Amino acid sequence: MRRVMLTVAYDGTNYHGWQLQANVPTIESVLNGTLSTFLKEDIKVIGASRTDTGVHALGNIAVFDTQARMPAEKFSYALNQRLPADIQIQSSREVPPDFHPRQCSSRKTYEYRIWNSAFPMPVHRLYSHFTYAPLDIKRMQRAADCLVGEHDFKSFCSVNTTAETTVRTLYDVTVEKTGDMITLRVTGSGFLYNMVRIIAGTLMDVGKGRLAPGQIADILNACDRTKAGPTAPACGLTLVKYEFLDDILPGAPGA
Amino acid sequence: MRRVMLTVAYDGTNYHGWQLQANVPTIESVLNGTLSTFLKEDIKVIGASRTDTGVHALGNIAVFDTQARMPAEKFSYALNQRLPADIQIQSSREVPPDFHPRQCSSRKTYEYRIWNSAFPMPVHRLYSHFTYAPLDIKRMQRAADCLVGEHDFKSFCSVNTTAETTVRTLYDVTVEKTGDMITLRVTGSGFLYNMVRIIAGTLMDVGKGRLAPGQIADILNACDRTKAGPTAPACGLTLVKYEFLDDILPGAPGA
Repeated sequence: MRRVMLTVAYDGTNYHGWQLQANVPTIESVLNGTLSTFLKEDIKVIGASRTDTGVHALGNIAVFDTQARMPAEKFSYALNQRLPADIQIQSSREVPPDFHPRQCSSRKTYEYRIWNSAFPMPVHRLYSHFTYAPLDIKRMQRAADCLVGEHDFKSFCSVNTTAETTVRTLYDVTVEKTGDMITLRVTGSGFLYNMVRIIAGTLMDVGKGRLAPGQIADILNACDRTKAGPTAPACGLTLVKYEFLDDILPGAPGA
Repeated sequence: MRRVMLTVAYDGTNYHGWQLQANVPTIESVLNGTLSTFLKEDIKVIGASRTDTGVHALGNIAVFDTQARMPAEKFSYALNQRLPADIQIQSSREVPPDFHPRQCSSRKTYEYRIWNSAFPMPVHRLYSHFTYAPLDIKRMQRAADCLVGEHDFKSFCSVNTTAETTVRTLYDVTVEKTGDMITLRVTGSGFLYNMVRIIAGTLMDVGKGRLAPGQIADILNACDRTKAGPTAPACGLTLVKYEFLDDILPGAPGA
């Protein structure tokens, strides 16, 4: 048996998220089905980030075990011909048999995109959230700065969480504007359920003037989901990059 | 009667282009239907650029005549609630009753986007053309420079054209790369049928090394469609901006 790692990109619009569910299409179910048919083995992938319904990815990670002898690098070519256009493998490689993507140190980068103009723009509607309320990105950046570092992010976590601890570290939170598109970019060691979408909803409240940048510290300290802003819609969120920090992956591209 | 001008944005993926056709959805048919129902008049829009099947727009132009007395600026709000999410008005204003968008001097900007990476990227698949063949954008820019100015673009025009003259002026042709996305941006006085897509196909041939930048002059001189490169696929093309140059539109935003 060999373990193969896939970097998986997808348009989440037509999927009920990553995780296997009965009777609805998910990224995991399509990958399991395509791999099992192609390799004539019963393949079950292990995903790194179990993204929600409607969330997109440029580089999520999946691993699976196979008896197949083809070079691991060739899997991306073979699979892409068999996968739908809205799920495509960006790279494939062999990893140690005990490599588990959720059990080693990693750094994830998400982007949340906001189309901030008087009217929705059709070509951006699937991959950004639209709001006509003018957002002050300088205020948003000041608020974003307060989120960097190690904090208890309980206020920025869906109440349905099953996480053992709500302490996480964010390395970088930036707010940029190009034309009418605002991009919020968040890099961290890990993320709680809905964390980036609640950060996005809260920073939008700051951008609209409903919250002051200085209130972010109070919201963090409260450890109370009701103190933060709303959960921003899924379509604006994209998992951009997933990096493994340990030496567990020889020759892995660095951070 | 008043004449109202709309700036119309659309995702062309699900439409058979702009122009009215029997039994298939087009941008023009949706606008006529939505306006007629909303205003309870028989409305027929006049479009500036009759884009092809699958081509997108951030700012195409349509005008129509109406008896309605609502302020012209309010049409965008009222129509967007009634239009599908893939067609949205970006602005509306009153224009002189004899204003015809195809009969006055204008400047149009198109973008052709190319995703140039080993594998297709799902979130970009609807709004760019994918090619894995590495493209040398410096070569492409040198070729693009040869297209600027007044030329007979017969070699860059579909043979089915009905245009009286194939002479057009290009003001600017640029090739830029951001990450794996190459954007070709073309601004001109007017465009022949399929002209931007044939320019894109030809510049891609230059980028791949199949044509030398210096051959662009020969291709122009030949006035022969078979000398230029292939017509690049529609999904990569977006009509970005349509500007009117005359003083015919008082207070119009300048070039």
